[in-house]
Amino acid sequence: MKLLHEDRLFPADPETRAIARRLYGSISDLPIVSPHGHTQAAWFAHNQPFPDPAKLFVQPDHYVYRMLYSQGVSLDDLEIGVPELKNPRKVWRIFAEHYYLFRGTPTRIWLDYAFHKLFGLEERLSAKNADHYYDTIAEKLRTPEFLPRALYERFKIEVLATTDSPLDSLIDHQAIRDSGWKARILPTFRPDSVVDPDFAGFRDNIAKLGGLTGEDTGDWIGYLRALEKTRARFKQLGCTATDHGHPTARTANLSRDEASSLYSQILKGSTDPKQRELFRAQMLTEMAGMSVRDGLVMQIHPGSFRNHNRLVYERYGRDTGADIPMPTDYVRALHPLLERYGNEPGLTVILFTLDESSYSRELAPLAGHYPCLRLGPPWWFYDSPEGMLRFRETTTETAGFYNTVGFNDDTRAFLSIPARHDVARRMDCAYLARLVAEHRLDEDEALELAHDLAYNLVRKAYKL
Amino acid sequence: MKLLHEDRLFPADPETRAIARRLYGSISDLPIVSPHGHTQAAWFAHNQPFPDPAKLFVQPDHYVYRMLYSQGVSLDDLEIGVPELKNPRKVWRIFAEHYYLFRGTPTRIWLDYAFHKLFGLEERLSAKNADHYYDTIAEKLRTPEFLPRALYERFKIEVLATTDSPLDSLIDHQAIRDSGWKARILPTFRPDSVVDPDFAGFRDNIAKLGGLTGEDTGDWIGYLRALEKTRARFKQLGCTATDHGHPTARTANLSRDEASSLYSQILKGSTDPKQRELFRAQMLTEMAGMSVRDGLVMQIHPGSFRNHNRLVYERYGRDTGADIPMPTDYVRALHPLLERYGNEPGLTVILFTLDESSYSRELAPLAGHYPCLRLGPPWWFYDSPEGMLRFRETTTETAGFYNTVGFNDDTRAFLSIPARHDVARRMDCAYLARLVAEHRLDEDEALELAHDLAYNLVRKAYKL
Amino acid sequence: MKLLHEDRLFPADPETRAIARRLYGSISDLPIVSPHGHTQAAWFAHNQPFPDPAKLFVQPDHYVYRMLYSQGVSLDDLEIGVPELKNPRKVWRIFAEHYYLFRGTPTRIWLDYAFHKLFGLEERLSAKNADHYYDTIAEKLRTPEFLPRALYERFKIEVLATTDSPLDSLIDHQAIRDSGWKARILPTFRPDSVVDPDFAGFRDNIAKLGGLTGEDTGDWIGYLRALEKTRARFKQLGCTATDHGHPTARTANLSRDEASSLYSQILKGSTDPKQRELFRAQMLTEMAGMSVRDGLVMQIHPGSFRNHNRLVYERYGRDTGADIPMPTDYVRALHPLLERYGNEPGLTVILFTLDESSYSRELAPLAGHYPCLRLGPPWWFYDSPEGMLRFRETTTETAGFYNTVGFNDDTRAFLSIPARHDVARRMDCAYLARLVAEHRLDEDEALELAHDLAYNLVRKAYKL
Repeated sequence: MKLLHEDRLFPADPETRAIARRLYGSISDLPIVSPHGHTQAAWFAHNQPFPDPAKLFVQPDHYVYRMLYSQGVSLDDLEIGVPELKNPRKVWRIFAEHYYLFRGTPTRIWLDYAFHKLFGLEERLSAKNADHYYDTIAEKLRTPEFLPRALYERFKIEVLATTDSPLDSLIDHQAIRDSGWKARILPTFRPDSVVDPDFAGFRDNIAKLGGLTGEDTGDWIGYLRALEKTRARFKQLGCTATDHGHPTARTANLSRDEASSLYSQILKGSTDPKQRELFRAQMLTEMAGMSVRDGLVMQIHPGSFRNHNRLVYERYGRDTGADIPMPTDYVRALHPLLERYGNEPGLTVILFTLDESSYSRELAPLAGHYPCLRLGPPWWFYDSPEGMLRFRETTTETAGFYNTVGFNDDTRAFLSIPARHDVARRMDCAYLARLVAEHRLDEDEALELAHDLAYNLVRKAYKL
Repeated sequence: MKLLHEDRLFPADPETRAIARRLYGSISDLPIVSPHGHTQAAWFAHNQPFPDPAKLFVQPDHYVYRMLYSQGVSLDDLEIGVPELKNPRKVWRIFAEHYYLFRGTPTRIWLDYAFHKLFGLEERLSAKNADHYYDTIAEKLRTPEFLPRALYERFKIEVLATTDSPLDSLIDHQAIRDSGWKARILPTFRPDSVVDPDFAGFRDNIAKLGGLTGEDTGDWIGYLRALEKTRARFKQLGCTATDHGHPTARTANLSRDEASSLYSQILKGSTDPKQRELFRAQMLTEMAGMSVRDGLVMQIHPGSFRNHNRLVYERYGRDTGADIPMPTDYVRALHPLLERYGNEPGLTVILFTLDESSYSRELAPLAGHYPCLRLGPPWWFYDSPEGMLRFRETTTETAGFYNTVGFNDDTRAFLSIPARHDVARRMDCAYLARLVAEHRLDEDEALELAHDLAYNLVRKAYKL
Repeated sequence: MKLLHEDRLFPADPETRAIARRLYGSISDLPIVSPHGHTQAAWFAHNQPFPDPAKLFVQPDHYVYRMLYSQGVSLDDLEIGVPELKNPRKVWRIFAEHYYLFRGTPTRIWLDYAFHKLFGLEERLSAKNADHYYDTIAEKLRTPEFLPRALYERFKIEVLATTDSPLDSLIDHQAIRDSGWKARILPTFRPDSVVDPDFAGFRDNIAKLGGLTGEDTGDWIGYLRALEKTRARFKQLGCTATDHGHPTARTANLSRDEASSLYSQILKGSTDPKQRELFRAQMLTEMAGMSVRDGLVMQIHPGSFRNHNRLVYERYGRDTGADIPMPTDYVRALHPLLERYGNEPGLTVILFTLDESSYSRELAPLAGHYPCLRLGPPWWFYDSPEGMLRFRETTTETAGFYNTVGFNDDTRAFLSIPARHDVARRMDCAYLARLVAEHRLDEDEALELAHDLAYNLVRKAYKL
């Protein structure tokens, strides 16, 4: 049995499948544009080999270990949060033994893709072949072909955006540029640490921001100027977008005096949760205003209840698989921002959701009207075959294809990037093929759309 | 390439498609019953030619220009809100140039249908053939075959309901009757302007209502009597239904004294939003009571955040594509009305939603129990192939087919009526064909159902 | 025409159907494990013949008569709530005449299955053959093959759980054991009547609970002890699970003093709805704590607005088809319970929902992380082909298959048990077949999964 079938993810109906094949064949070799993700610029700055298989595939991937944990595997046994793995082979064996848990999940598809395409493995991972997998992968990782820069080129990546704090010096991004290596690795301005009063160390962060920019961040105007300067610093290294990960999509439209006074209270720490939520809301609108002026594309990623499992958070830290989606309102929440900037010609705001019920009800109707709005691709748990299909089925009829922005891999797992883009391309072709087979679209249009969804729209939306 | 394939919208699987074809073949020629829409009685009263293509297809259709606006086309360039188009050909060219934006949308299906079936056009609209389209359409519009009454007959319309204010004299409806033309064009009683305190000019409208009916609308009892008299006036011109477009589905069950006192406050204008919402809620229950007595079928269309884009509203007015759906509760909201009238034998209340998550959770369970409730067809943004499929998939198993009421075209675009009914018939046949192919229904039952869904249920539900 | 096609519910695409057939063929004969339902232990204790067809198929089944009522059939004519039917043949004829209303519903599938498999009927029920049906069924019901124990064996039931009040003596369960009949019929601990202050007779029930256990239930500690003792009594008769049917999923985490004081107020009756909701919330957490200690699996069934139709409730009582689902929050609601017990190794909490929008947004992400959580199968209105498909499509990619627990028939209608399990098995095979046909799963894995979903997972989750 082969790990990857050439027709994987295509509809079973033979005629529809044949159309999907033709569409996919026309785009499968396009370069990868990755405008949003969580790879590390340091990998490419230093170009050191990736460590062992467990460190590569298990430890950084909360999709993997949240499933194992849900079925009773101990996070300690998986050495989660341990900087240097003590027994990577043991971790790998636990993973292999539980690989059947991933049946029907996108994680399985991404992993099989990497196992097969990168490491030439042919047989499904299981307890039996765990050591063979481990040895094969470990050996390849030591070769020059598996250094980060070599993989970047092998993956045919055209642009790769990272996600960075305003407090980051971007030294690794600078080093990549200085190295003369011809790759386009760009920072993204992610200001949560300095705009969310509930972020750990918020007030220290504000002070650091002042230090880095030479502005008096103790004052509302100085604070805004510090943010503007930092955005300009990011832009100099190629940044084209900002990213905002608030608990809700709420925005506000305070007067300058109200905002200034709220900021003072926030800095004093004498606020309640409502005021902190109002501050985050106002900051989204401020960021939109700055985007109108400096042209950075704005991404809003709301709706996650972070660190839902306190015990896991306290022992293993943030981003450990215990962030859970919540119902998310957009129609009322975005109204203040849209009332102020919604008709600005130069502005682009890309909306994401973890609440799929909002696609047909709120997001597609909003994006099908406001010139500044675009729909981000299905995100996080929905970055999956069914999630992608539901996204197209619930947004296309109201917002069309051209208010969407192509695919984001959004990953911490560098090796999964080609697999994730491949899934997105196949699912878009599967959807388009169905439209063609049902005579809702002509095949020449579908060919053009396949190319737009895989390549053109992302470049346009993110100004790449 | 042909604009319309004879198998369009049918499932690709050959056996299922063959069943769908047989079902559709048995109903494709049935007359159109259109119990809810926004065409103008004046068209049929005066029977004047429709003006140019832009005025016909672009200017009145917010489905069309909301999409263009979302992609940066200026509403001024499209001459939206301009009573006499200055440069209809220029507007048409902009439209044609952006026609690709409608790929995958129902608008595209409706337009292609009209272009092909009415105007004999064979090639997909684009910048290249914009003028050919314009000239072809403009020429035909000047012929007698394209006068409103001729089209009504050509479309095989059996009944066509308009939507009318209680303040409307219905003079055009009267004129149609007086003309001796044998068509059934009926008014629908839509009282938002006189039951919603937030409606522009509400208090003036109440005064006018008093004038028209000879009742003292300064008083609760007189106000109710004025509404009853107006309903009776509508009934005399064939009206069988009322229509209620509230922001929410909330109903109330106040005592006569409470209602009377709330009405006094409303008239004084000394109310807050909660009281105005309570008044709308009470009025739904009052309307249900009147329906119990006079037999008018009640339609409830809740859940739209109207005029979300203030700038567009101020410049271009209402109904310009910036109404956005909101989450809508039915189970608690309708409870007061249902507690009072839910088991009345003669009452019919047809529920619509813009929140598809309520179909399986609330609407189908409600309609599958209360004898007065029926489910309206998918509405507005969901009047589309995927929307129709989701409607059947999420309601049939709990409410069955017989608690639904056939199709509403709900359109301002007269020429799209046959296209919209055709899409609904095809999608219902597609769904039924799947049930037959999966042996969940026998084909003789599906044939009967296809006929019921296209023709019988709407006549029964709307008492036509 | 045959009532049951051997390929029913399988996808129409020939290749996918062939896979589904193979998968189903490998599990269709597995024994039935029914861990949650509402059959009566008394039937098996006394083993008396079931009465007439109307009493068997119409009177106890609110799925049946809610549909008839929604279409104007009088509940009095159906003799709902009448202990001894006066005219069962008349009731049956009304039912037969309206059988077409069930087209497209799971009720139709279940009934056709029983009519055909148990009674050998071949022709679709209608007004024409109503008497033939009645006579055929009535005759068979008088034979020994149709006694409850004979049917239990014929259905190949391996385990059957009932649902029982803590105030129930479980005398029938004891009698079954004492009879020496080798069947595994187990009680389930359903404490609503003694943990929900809004339950009719709550305070009397608390007093009875004290009497039955010899504990002072006037006191918080005595009350908890009484519950623990009752759970132990249930366990002695084989009970492995508890079941909790609260209006919401809300949980709380009060200190012992707070809880004790709240309980005193509850007993005094001097509480408002918020306090009663808080008490229910606290009791879910208490029950989870007891489950940690005694190992009973905890089922949470939230989200129903009970007795929505007051008139029907007053005339015909509870559970008469007027319970309507509501939007249900899990992420915040379960947080207190999960914070306290979510990482306990021995605990199993099975979550159900009537709000399908929560599957992909909340339930799958929660179950794909917390080791104690599992997803119950689609419940109530969603125990249907489309409901089952949506369940798999919206949960598998995030929670996998192994965080689900197989099927619950949850029925009061004993004769529908094999039909319901058959539908679940077919739909799981249909879903798996699609994954195989789309090369998202290998067929050997699908075969293993089919067996797990039909048989292994339920035994493991419910500790059977």
